[in-house]
Amino acid sequence: MDEVTFKWSSKPELSTPTLVEGLPGVGNVGKLAAEHLIDELKAEKFIDIFSKHFPPQVLIKEDGTIKLVRNEVYFHRSKDAGDLIILTGDYQGHSPEGQYVLSDAVLKELVDYKLKRIYTLGGWSTGRIVDTPRVLGAATSLDMVKALTDSGVTSSSGEPGGGIVGAGGLLIGLGNLMGIEGACLMGETSGYFVDPKSARSVLEALTKILGVTISFAQLEEKAKQIEALTSRIKEMEPEQRGPKDDLGYIG
Amino acid sequence: MDEVTFKWSSKPELSTPTLVEGLPGVGNVGKLAAEHLIDELKAEKFIDIFSKHFPPQVLIKEDGTIKLVRNEVYFHRSKDAGDLIILTGDYQGHSPEGQYVLSDAVLKELVDYKLKRIYTLGGWSTGRIVDTPRVLGAATSLDMVKALTDSGVTSSSGEPGGGIVGAGGLLIGLGNLMGIEGACLMGETSGYFVDPKSARSVLEALTKILGVTISFAQLEEKAKQIEALTSRIKEMEPEQRGPKDDLGYIG
Amino acid sequence: MDEVTFKWSSKPELSTPTLVEGLPGVGNVGKLAAEHLIDELKAEKFIDIFSKHFPPQVLIKEDGTIKLVRNEVYFHRSKDAGDLIILTGDYQGHSPEGQYVLSDAVLKELVDYKLKRIYTLGGWSTGRIVDTPRVLGAATSLDMVKALTDSGVTSSSGEPGGGIVGAGGLLIGLGNLMGIEGACLMGETSGYFVDPKSARSVLEALTKILGVTISFAQLEEKAKQIEALTSRIKEMEPEQRGPKDDLGYIG
Amino acid sequence: MDEVTFKWSSKPELSTPTLVEGLPGVGNVGKLAAEHLIDELKAEKFIDIFSKHFPPQVLIKEDGTIKLVRNEVYFHRSKDAGDLIILTGDYQGHSPEGQYVLSDAVLKELVDYKLKRIYTLGGWSTGRIVDTPRVLGAATSLDMVKALTDSGVTSSSGEPGGGIVGAGGLLIGLGNLMGIEGACLMGETSGYFVDPKSARSVLEALTKILGVTISFAQLEEKAKQIEALTSRIKEMEPEQRGPKDDLGYIG
Repeated sequence: MDEVTFKWSSKPELSTPTLVEGLPGVGNVGKLAAEHLIDELKAEKFIDIFSKHFPPQVLIKEDGTIKLVRNEVYFHRSKDAGDLIILTGDYQGHSPEGQYVLSDAVLKELVDYKLKRIYTLGGWSTGRIVDTPRVLGAATSLDMVKALTDSGVTSSSGEPGGGIVGAGGLLIGLGNLMGIEGACLMGETSGYFVDPKSARSVLEALTKILGVTISFAQLEEKAKQIEALTSRIKEMEPEQRGPKDDLGYIG
Repeated sequence: MDEVTFKWSSKPELSTPTLVEGLPGVGNVGKLAAEHLIDELKAEKFIDIFSKHFPPQVLIKEDGTIKLVRNEVYFHRSKDAGDLIILTGDYQGHSPEGQYVLSDAVLKELVDYKLKRIYTLGGWSTGRIVDTPRVLGAATSLDMVKALTDSGVTSSSGEPGGGIVGAGGLLIGLGNLMGIEGACLMGETSGYFVDPKSARSVLEALTKILGVTISFAQLEEKAKQIEALTSRIKEMEPEQRGPKDDLGYIG
Repeated sequence: MDEVTFKWSSKPELSTPTLVEGLPGVGNVGKLAAEHLIDELKAEKFIDIFSKHFPPQVLIKEDGTIKLVRNEVYFHRSKDAGDLIILTGDYQGHSPEGQYVLSDAVLKELVDYKLKRIYTLGGWSTGRIVDTPRVLGAATSLDMVKALTDSGVTSSSGEPGGGIVGAGGLLIGLGNLMGIEGACLMGETSGYFVDPKSARSVLEALTKILGVTISFAQLEEKAKQIEALTSRIKEMEPEQRGPKDDLGYIG
Repeated sequence: MDEVTFKWSSKPELSTPTLVEGLPGVGNVGKLAAEHLIDELKAEKFIDIFSKHFPPQVLIKEDGTIKLVRNEVYFHRSKDAGDLIILTGDYQGHSPEGQYVLSDAVLKELVDYKLKRIYTLGGWSTGRIVDTPRVLGAATSLDMVKALTDSGVTSSSGEPGGGIVGAGGLLIGLGNLMGIEGACLMGETSGYFVDPKSARSVLEALTKILGVTISFAQLEEKAKQIEALTSRIKEMEPEQRGPKDDLGYIG
């Protein structure tokens, strides 16, 4: 069995597109942001990615049909932002080695598109609930760091913590070795809940940088639902809350 | 050493057979069901499967001889149901990657048989003892979901939980990528005991779908033994029961 | 890097030798037995085995020089027992997959010797201190099971527990697939200490089966040292003993 | 994706150089020592090493730019000590197998340089704070053990503990199989803090052996900072200190 299998449903012609990645992670920020972007831009799926480095699992959809876990790649041709490729999916690789294999395979599979730039989206865990999440950023060059901070992103250099783990880090790290510049945008998030508010902050920064305009109404709606939930939890007596680990993710 | 080794003891001619899988898992439901089906149909073994993705272990049989852990493939030619191939065994793959490698290898090894359909059998953990276990199902197409529910299977779409993990999910997920339709039938089970009653429910659904008639007397007998055991445990005072984990599986 | 590297220091001619394996495991019984056999027979080392499936470690010898962890293969030409090959070493493979790769590689590396039979040696954990450890056995054929029980070995078929894990199981399991008969001899042992007494029982059974005569004086001496130690521990008040895990192995 | 990728920025001509390794480990002693040596000798980087056996991570630098985790190889031409190659980096391999693959790949990549000798640097955990850390050593030959003890290094043969784990052990163990002699120098360290004082002891021994003279002022400065910190912790009441695990490494 191949390490990674790419099933192309079409081969769109794209002109030096920008790759945007949002996969599951802290607060599910990256995945929420990428999915919202796909919905708003009506981006079109053209590749399904399967791999033995994903969990051995099928998901059951609303209609009772099953779906082998996968990553998905979409494209969108934008007059303002140039062509976009958006990567999202059900899981990241389940092992450190699988993470490398997957990120490397994606970059090699897309090599003919001559990617212009890579933006990866994710959450930055703060351990406490943040009212106005900042967006922290890091990039492959000083020029890109400056471009980020000019757009209101906070450089993450002064923040504690050891780096960016997973696809959000590897795609820009491995991409850089291939000569592609990139940046990671991370929304502050408690780490206890899925966080549409943080995803919105990240997307606002990204769309400003890209020069695209989208609506945030749906993310706003999801954020309100989560907020109603978390405020009920904050009102509870501590002994009713249960252990922190039990809060888990709520989607 | 090869990832997976197939030892064929015969090469039966079969006409677009249906693959039925039942390997160890929650409540051992799938394995109990597959073994009962093999016994009742007097199905014949034709392949032994060995792999470094199984635990590094030999089992000791009643007569003191040893058996390297393996999966086994049986066939049965049925006038009513068409030809059947039944996969069972001692273990599933011990790692996520091993699970993929094994399911993929089985499907490729059987590719010349042009499998018509795949049914995987398993347990659906409810966390409590269920008097009349329902059979939940999911499938690769809406048509098959409808066929399941027409046969009394409950669509698992509305149930909580994230999907079907292991061979029961992968065989239909990977099979679907190869153009083979499939379904998973999961019997409700507490998850604390091996559950012949749940296995019976699953087999009743499967044989109805396939159009085969078999006796359930032996499963009935095993179910009574387990029931006698579990009712004794339910009568015990909580402090006598020991921690939940200690109940383990009882075969 | 190769999965397994064999460094031959000589290529002895041997006539359909019998392979005896004793690697670290429960009570270190197998390794103690194999090393004692090597010492008493003055067997000669002819292969060193290195592998990435061993722990990434060098051991420091008494004289301050280092030794990369390895397995070692010895031979001995015996008038009574026929030629012998003895496998021992510092570790077994550190992962399930590594266990398979190593046992398979050893059997393939020795294939030209046309092994006549394989005996693997190990401990059978009883969880309590046993005064007169029995030797339990399992084999690849009913004939060999009978030969074992005729020599005073207890067939392990009636014992609880799921089988034989690790090299002691795989060498006879994989060997059997290659057409070589084999047996595993397991000395009862508490599992809390290295157990030279159990190793002696195993070796007494093996040498009786092989028709070799050796002295057990050195194992006897080691057994007395361990016994002195364990009886002191049994005399201690429970609160002085410390947690069971802390007893560990004492070599 | 290759197991290990070497990016050479230059191909310096070196005459049978000596390899010195210092990677992260107990007390970070090896890495501190190697980095100090690189700084003092103004050694020049000529290879970056990337691998799927490192954690899937990018680090964020002070200026907000990112760096894919890596190992780095430097060279220095010394009149007194002969040519040196120094290996350091962000991480060791994250799995036992990865450790083997990386050490083996490094030795093979450097094979044309005909390495004369290998010195690996590390910490030896004592579990308590040591005022004057000794340097323990082990080597591939009795001659080298003698050379170490002649230079004030204590032979580690009499010390408890099972050996040298990781790159510090494998490079000399695998190197020895290739016919290269080597030694490991380990500074005593508590294991609770990064330990520049222990790194200094190790470097003093190494530079004496190599015949190089360097300043230790910067390590001295770092050692004073850590000492100020640890003495404050020692003054605290036990209940203020928090669990031992929480002290972690402090860099």
